[in-house]
Order: sequence, then C-alpha cells, then structure tokens
Amino acid sequence: MAPTRNARVLFAAIPEGFPIPGKTTVYDSSQKIVLGTVPLNGGFLIKTLVLSIDPYMRARMRMSTEKDSYSAPFVLGAPLKSHGVGLVLRSENPDVTPGKYVYGVSIPHQEYSVLPNMEELIFLEKDPNLPWTVYVGAAGMPGKTAYMAWKEYSQAKKDETAFITTGAGAVGSMVIQLAKRDGLKVIACAGSEEKVKFIQELGADVAFNYKTTDMRTVLAREGPINIFWDNVGGDALDAALEHAAVYARFLECGMISAYNTGYRGSKKLHYIFTKSITVNGFVVFRMKPKYDTEFYETIPRLLASGELKYREEVSRGLETVGHTILRIMEGKNTGKAVVAVAEE
Amino acid sequence: MAPTRNARVLFAAIPEGFPIPGKTTVYDSSQKIVLGTVPLNGGFLIKTLVLSIDPYMRARMRMSTEKDSYSAPFVLGAPLKSHGVGLVLRSENPDVTPGKYVYGVSIPHQEYSVLPNMEELIFLEKDPNLPWTVYVGAAGMPGKTAYMAWKEYSQAKKDETAFITTGAGAVGSMVIQLAKRDGLKVIACAGSEEKVKFIQELGADVAFNYKTTDMRTVLAREGPINIFWDNVGGDALDAALEHAAVYARFLECGMISAYNTGYRGSKKLHYIFTKSITVNGFVVFRMKPKYDTEFYETIPRLLASGELKYREEVSRGLETVGHTILRIMEGKNTGKAVVAVAEE
Repeated sequence: MAPTRNARVLFAAIPEGFPIPGKTTVYDSSQKIVLGTVPLNGGFLIKTLVLSIDPYMRARMRMSTEKDSYSAPFVLGAPLKSHGVGLVLRSENPDVTPGKYVYGVSIPHQEYSVLPNMEELIFLEKDPNLPWTVYVGAAGMPGKTAYMAWKEYSQAKKDETAFITTGAGAVGSMVIQLAKRDGLKVIACAGSEEKVKFIQELGADVAFNYKTTDMRTVLAREGPINIFWDNVGGDALDAALEHAAVYARFLECGMISAYNTGYRGSKKLHYIFTKSITVNGFVVFRMKPKYDTEFYETIPRLLASGELKYREEVSRGLETVGHTILRIMEGKNTGKAVVAVAEE
Repeated sequence: MAPTRNARVLFAAIPEGFPIPGKTTVYDSSQKIVLGTVPLNGGFLIKTLVLSIDPYMRARMRMSTEKDSYSAPFVLGAPLKSHGVGLVLRSENPDVTPGKYVYGVSIPHQEYSVLPNMEELIFLEKDPNLPWTVYVGAAGMPGKTAYMAWKEYSQAKKDETAFITTGAGAVGSMVIQLAKRDGLKVIACAGSEEKVKFIQELGADVAFNYKTTDMRTVLAREGPINIFWDNVGGDALDAALEHAAVYARFLECGMISAYNTGYRGSKKLHYIFTKSITVNGFVVFRMKPKYDTEFYETIPRLLASGELKYREEVSRGLETVGHTILRIMEGKNTGKAVVAVAEE
C-alpha cells in the first residue's frame, strides 16, 4: 500500500502579539502515513474532516511552564489541536467501529491521526440537513457555550434587556437568538457594518458597530441592562458596569480584547456591589455533563430547520489554518471559522 | 423652658483625598433647640444616643450631581448622616411613643433631631446585656452585612477555605466567626499586629499582617480559596483571583483600597471564566427585607452570651466625629468605630 501524505500544522513559536502564519504556526506537508498498516496500539485511526478555529486557542500558545489557563499549552514542534470531527477508518477498539464519527476538543491539526481511546471524545450522529462544519460551530463548542451558560446563569426574564458583545460571532449570534426566544430586548454590537447587518437578521432589537458608534451612548439610551454577555472584557465591561441595572447578571465568556494585547484593568468594579450585580464565569467543559444530552436533542434540529440561524466561514485545507487563526484574532471573519480538511 | 445646645457635625467641603476634620467635616455648637416646644409637624423628636462611623460614608462625600453610588451624597452645609440609635422624646405620631428607640440609616449628626416619619427607621428592643453602641456594629448594619451576605451568597460547605480581608473590621470579624461556625478553614488578614492578634482570638486558622507578609505567599501555601470576602478590592482582589479554586465564590462587600485614592484596575479578571468563579456584589439594604427578622432573633443573643465576639472603639461626643472618620479611612481604628453622643 502506497504511503499517503499526512500534512499537519505545527505550533512553531510562542507569539508575542498576534500569531503569525509561517512563524507561530507552520504548515508542513513532509510527513507520510500508510493508512492500512500504521500501528494502532489498541486505538483507532481517524481521517480529519473539519477543524474548528476559536479565539481561546490563543491562550494555548504559551510557554509550557505557564499554568495560567484552563487549557493546556500547545507543545512546541507538535501539531496544534482543536475541536474537530473525524471519521474512523480503522480500529482495534471494539466500541469504535470504522465508519463512526467522533467529535472532541483535542483533534490534531493533521490529516490522519491515531488516537489511543475515546477520552474527551464523543460519537456524533449527523443530521442529514446539517454539514459537518456546523458540528464544530453552532452545533458544537460555541453553540454549547451559548446554550449552556444562558440556561445556567442568565436567569432571563421576559422583557428584560440583554447586551451581547461580539454579536456576530459563533457564540454571540447564538446568544442573541436564545435571548430573543426568551422574550428579551436585545442590544448587540460587532465591529463592521456587515456584521451589524447579520445581527439585525438574527433579531436583535438594537444593533451597532462599536467602532463607529459610542457604546455608552447606546447603553444610556437603550439600557439599563439586566444581562451582559461579555466576550470582550476591557472597556466594554466597564461600559456595561456603568449601565447595568440593579441585580444585573454578567456572563463572563471571554475577554478577546486582551488575548493578544494584554489585560487592561477594569476600573468600574465598584458597581458590582453598588448595583448588587452577579458575575458568573464559565467554561463549556464544566457545563457539559449537565447539559450535553439536551443540547444535542434541541439545537441541531432547530439549526437544520432554520429556526436558529448560523453563519460560517469555511476555508479548505490545512494550509489555511494559520491565516484563519490570525483572521479571527483580528476580528476579520464573517462567520464561525472552520477549516474543512477533507471530504468523507 | 430654656434652650438646649444642639451641636452638630456639618459636611463642609468635598474632600479630594482623605476627609480632613475641620475642613471636610466641621463641628458646630452654635445651634440651640427648645425641646419642649420645637414644632414636630406630625413627626417626632429624638435624642441621638449613638452614631456609627463606617467606610461607605466616604462615598457620600461627593458632588450632589454625581450619581455614581448607591447612597445619596451628603448635602454641603448640612449635618452628616449615618446609622444611629435615637431615643424618642416627644411625638405627634401615635405609633412612635416617647421612650421608644429608633434605628436607621439616616440619623443626623446632631444632638437632637425632628424626624418626619418612620421611613428607613425601625424600632429596637435592647438586650439588657448589650450596650446601644453594639446596635450600630455587630448587631447593626455591619453585622447584618456579614450575616445576610454570608447566608445569601457564600454557599459555604464544611472544610472549604475562606479568605477574609479587613478581618479585624466590623464586617470582617463577624464573617470570620460565621465561617468558623460553618466549619470552614479561615484565612484572614489585617494591617497591624494588634489586629492580627484579634483575628486569631476570633478563631481564624491563618492570620497575617498584609503590610509585613506577602499575601500571595500565604494564599499559595494555605489556599486555594473557595470563598473570598472582599472589603478591599485592588491588589487583594487580584491576589484572590490568582489563588481561587474552581467554582470559588467572591463576595464583594466593598473596596476601601479605592475610596480615598481612586480605583486601581483589576488585571486578573480572566480567572473569573477560567475558574468558573461566581462574583456577587451586595449592599445590606437590599438584603434586609429577607433577613432582618432572623438577624435580630439570632445575632444579638449570641453577642450578649459571648458566643460571638465583637470589638468596638467608642469615642464620646459629636466633636469626635471628624477624627473618627479620618481614623477609619486610614485603618487606624482597632474596633468598630462608634460615637457615643449622649447617655439616655
């Protein structure tokens, strides 16, 4: 059997600011694999179908000695890893039969990989009306983050007002729709006119471009806000604190404003006590045990029927990973960033 | 009937940093009152017995146009107001009979005052073994703050670890004891060896002087912490975020580090999501409707019996108010600051 190319994307250097393709991340097509005979050692061989590119990956691009985060650092010289979907080609594990699809947080950025076991993986059943790419987006980790945290922490009540940052993003766009389904007034922002238009299509009552419209002016007019979904941190967090209602709930999902350029301190934290605000931080893996089953029973169906909207930006081939990572860090993507690595 | 002196303490100027006696606050003994004939206009006349001096008063020393706080600004040229206890001398209100004692948040810093109604006031029954001063401290607002927020937000579980700042203060000293009664390991700090000794007497397992001992070293050794009681903000908040356990609860009571010298931004807020931390801000007046009755049924009795300890620093006479305010802002008091204005 002839060897097959097994291209991969390596974590080549720790970035100082933005991760640079060809420097931070390097596409390498020099490796080969013999699919029929590669040793499995009790595990199984997958063909990578899709890989998710998400903002949190920036936090993994750090020194292996830094323990500062909830996710392990990437290993220098080894392939990146992220959420992805793989097709099982061969297996020595009786529970993992060829033809099954696996989804997990640590799929190597490599065309083919031997995985030792199902740890951190689940099997997926595909809805015939949804492409695999959606299973790492609105029907995957970002969708779960939105759905599970909204259920667990929003305490949403009809006619309340929610403010959602990065509203055109994979998480924010789902939160907007969940908030509207719960009967809230939704204020949402993004960084381009094109994204603002998408936010309006999702049903947001107030949509604005934070680069051209003063956030505090909007919040003063449309607030106060009962729920703040924070994907940004920094000055947006301070503006939300200033315009929060008493007993507001702040859902801290991420702080992309700081990932590449360092944390700017919040100076408005005193509103947390003067307004009796509740702030909840979360990461999706801690909520999955409680909500995974109901998520898969609910969300893929609503996405397939069109009752929930999603938008993705799919690039083809592992060689696009580096540019896609940079693109989402710069906020240039216009939908959930996914790399389609191969067809089935 | 001869007129009686009715001395008072005026809010004379908005402070830029620390409030200076004689400048920010001015004692004025020029006023007189005729107790038997002063018009009541349907209200009642009280003799002020004790007045509480608390850190939050600094936030009220601001421009009347600034809406930034949960409490109204003091009126320039008018008496300060604070929590206090008064004895009813005369009344035109049938529910407020002479000889009763009233407690409330807005007792004027004045020897005698005519109050229009019972709004923001409650009647107090005195435990024969507790002096009135305690009813503005451990059995008053600071004690309520500790008791009610601990009940509502700590989610305390036996054998968890709590870290309490300003542990020798009126609120912190009560929180330490409540945490120990719930079976927690308690780490607490204060700003002098004398206060550290008091914290140890309260039962704290680990007590340290934050001015001479590195907070992060203690928390690294004794943590991680499940509950953080924050009276300080600033760098202590960041240290607590660094050493928090997953699912930690942060109780945001105040940020005295910032009241006089401005807010230093927190730069460690990303731990809120990486560690799935819940942060709850609160102010006592919003918790009172739920907990006031059980507080008065529980806490004064435990204080009178000695099962709960308290410490106060009582100064005598309205002329001591200004210095007492400065003293607590500088952290020099060695117990709950109270001004005993008059005997019954």
